[in-house]
Amino acid sequence: MIKTDILIIGAGPTGLFAVFEAGLLKLKCHILDALPQPGGQLSELYPKKPIYDIPGFPEVLAGDLVDGLMEQIKQFEPGFTLGERAETIEKQEDGSFIVTSNKGKKFHAPVIAIAGGLGSFEPRKPLIEDIEFYEDKGVKYFIKNPEKFRDKRVVIAGGGDSALDWSIFLANVASEVTLIHRRNEFRGALDSVEKVQELKSAGKIKLITPAEVIGIHGAEHVEALDIEENGAHRKIETDYFIPLFGLTPKLGPIADWGLEIEKNAIKVNNALDYQTNIPGIFAIGDVNTYPGKLKLILCGFHEATLMCQAAYQIINPGKKYVLKYTTVSGVDGFDGTRKEAPKAVVKAIV
Amino acid sequence: MIKTDILIIGAGPTGLFAVFEAGLLKLKCHILDALPQPGGQLSELYPKKPIYDIPGFPEVLAGDLVDGLMEQIKQFEPGFTLGERAETIEKQEDGSFIVTSNKGKKFHAPVIAIAGGLGSFEPRKPLIEDIEFYEDKGVKYFIKNPEKFRDKRVVIAGGGDSALDWSIFLANVASEVTLIHRRNEFRGALDSVEKVQELKSAGKIKLITPAEVIGIHGAEHVEALDIEENGAHRKIETDYFIPLFGLTPKLGPIADWGLEIEKNAIKVNNALDYQTNIPGIFAIGDVNTYPGKLKLILCGFHEATLMCQAAYQIINPGKKYVLKYTTVSGVDGFDGTRKEAPKAVVKAIV
Ligand SMILES: Cc1cc2nc3c(=O)[nH]c(=O)nc-3n(C[C@H](O)[C@H](O)[C@H](O)COP(=O)(O)OP(=O)(O)OC[C@H]3O[C@@H](n4cnc5c(N)ncnc54)[C@H](O)[C@@H]3O)c2cc1C
Ligand SMILES: Cc1cc2nc3c(=O)[nH]c(=O)nc-3n(C[C@H](O)[C@H](O)[C@H](O)COP(=O)(O)OP(=O)(O)OC[C@H]3O[C@@H](n4cnc5c(N)ncnc54)[C@H](O)[C@@H]3O)c2cc1C
Repeated sequence: MIKTDILIIGAGPTGLFAVFEAGLLKLKCHILDALPQPGGQLSELYPKKPIYDIPGFPEVLAGDLVDGLMEQIKQFEPGFTLGERAETIEKQEDGSFIVTSNKGKKFHAPVIAIAGGLGSFEPRKPLIEDIEFYEDKGVKYFIKNPEKFRDKRVVIAGGGDSALDWSIFLANVASEVTLIHRRNEFRGALDSVEKVQELKSAGKIKLITPAEVIGIHGAEHVEALDIEENGAHRKIETDYFIPLFGLTPKLGPIADWGLEIEKNAIKVNNALDYQTNIPGIFAIGDVNTYPGKLKLILCGFHEATLMCQAAYQIINPGKKYVLKYTTVSGVDGFDGTRKEAPKAVVKAIV
Repeated sequence: MIKTDILIIGAGPTGLFAVFEAGLLKLKCHILDALPQPGGQLSELYPKKPIYDIPGFPEVLAGDLVDGLMEQIKQFEPGFTLGERAETIEKQEDGSFIVTSNKGKKFHAPVIAIAGGLGSFEPRKPLIEDIEFYEDKGVKYFIKNPEKFRDKRVVIAGGGDSALDWSIFLANVASEVTLIHRRNEFRGALDSVEKVQELKSAGKIKLITPAEVIGIHGAEHVEALDIEENGAHRKIETDYFIPLFGLTPKLGPIADWGLEIEKNAIKVNNALDYQTNIPGIFAIGDVNTYPGKLKLILCGFHEATLMCQAAYQIINPGKKYVLKYTTVSGVDGFDGTRKEAPKAVVKAIV
């Protein structure tokens, strides 16, 4: 059982920044996310694209913004459980909560901050018989640790940025990379398409197009795939099959937690602290709704900040918190580091 | 008369970012500020100090944040009227407003956004008889255009960062810089104190301490000052007298505009759009108050963003606005420039 002050569900920009604001209030956070990496939509959907409406950044790549947030919260040593989905919640007698993940891991906290964005990202799965049987036995929808594929044969299916970028990356890791797509044309960043072209010409990526994977073989683990190419069938051997057909976000199990839901989002009290109808559970960022709500990154930052003040009151009942400016008071990390502005001196000039 | 869509009172971070969000909605802004430069508290009180709680910036100097915001809003060509204070407001028959500055300049807009922070910064004035007479005749509490002092003699009074930094700056502009302070010790950034020491030793700044300016002479313009130094009196000639004793923010005339005021701040409807009790007048950033309000920069950014949506409705009644992501739709400046993410290509790999 993982114990923490605030369990944050969702490692998107909102959940990440909540760690910082909680840390200023000396509250510890643990973050749970279904994706294998932090950053939410920014990392999963558009890491290399520029965002123009983050205040103070005339332009920032989504991936760089996530890096900045990770660096900013480092001092507060958040715990991360990645690749697991929050599944159920139980209220304890003392008002705290136990959340259980789809893998059975348990988290105990007095405050829950749902920063789940559009929902937990679920892979679009190809319609292949028995594919569920092979999940975790050679079929992967996410790449969490690329080293797993070192010197193995992998087949990647898909025609977008993920399929292109992972083919490029794994070309230097796997013993063999085959990329299968149902069209000849790929859709992605120009440099990714060109790089795959180059690796294909150099014999480092095998390309099968237009084609589809239609069957999987193997007793205990993926061993081979049936492929339909231009109407003809053939079989190729491989150790891994990685279909990258995109992700769809699903509010999923959280929808059954007894929270007031409106238009697939969680209703919150925006006039005060972004708390839901269940005291102690907050919803911040894209996942919440209220009159005038805008699904923007900068709004999630504000909501996270106000939410942490209310969390502080729940965790420290009756204690008064006086807002301190980081510039004036510095930032004391849980890791023992301290950031602070250079002090003014008082000095005679002679 | 200056006409615009949104008249923003206050060029602090909140007012500046409002220009950007308004621009995305194709609304033009004009900004009025009592200070000679944009940036509000950040530029006036702590330009060289780091801020640690701006999301995405593990650390950013206040002055650099202002620069980033100025760069970000450049595309939307905001008008600036600096060094003037918003004094009176009159509601017009059509629901729009005319705001008049302390210098008589008039601004006409359907929407007013008060982003006045802690109020308009007013200089702390030394208690010298007739000093008001010499204001604009050689007595300056702000330095708007340092070139004004080229090859002139200036006397600066004060013992803090402003006095130190302007003495350093003007040492290379004015023909003679004299710095007067009632103590021998100065209080400021170490490098500023050391630089003044160096310039003093090199004869480029004259220092008179502990001393005070107690009188001003001159028929039409400052010509000389009476100084009390260690109990003794003497007179020194100068063209300008610049007392830099700090600024105090005053809500000032805005307090009389009929807005609901609480604890020196303007009450707004935070459950919707940060509008005040007078429809069409909004209050954003440090200047407003509502349950749970935090006087933080990042909160002002959020408030500005939601406020602009409401402004859009006032200016374009009945028109529906569909939120667009800057990453997806790009940003079209009023200056004809366009920012946009590199487009994905659709390309065959052969
Ligand atoms: C192409 C594109 C361009 C965009 N451009 C902009 C832009 O220019 N400016 C802007 O402000 N916004 C933009 N956005 C929107 C922006 O990405 C979102 O507002 C932002 O990501 C919301 O952050 P969040 O932290 O609230 O949620 P998310 O980023 O969606 O993160 C939520 C996380 O929660 C996880 N999660 C959900 N449910 C569970 C569960 N049950 N268990 C475990 N984990 C769970 C998800 O896996 C996800 O990682 C854009 C979005 C897209 C798709
Ligand atoms: C030393 C210090 C350290 C700080 N550190 C932090 C920090 O670490 N993090 C953080 O988030 N915040 C910090 N703050 C607070 C932060 O500076 C404010 O929250 C921020 O400046 C508010 O921005 P604003 O745009 O709302 O108002 P302001 O920055 O106050 O700007 C308001 C502007 O409006 C103008 N104005 C007011 N009335 C009128 C009028 N009638 N006519 C014309 N102009 C007018 C003023 O001259 C001023 O320029 C700090 C403040 C100080 C003083």
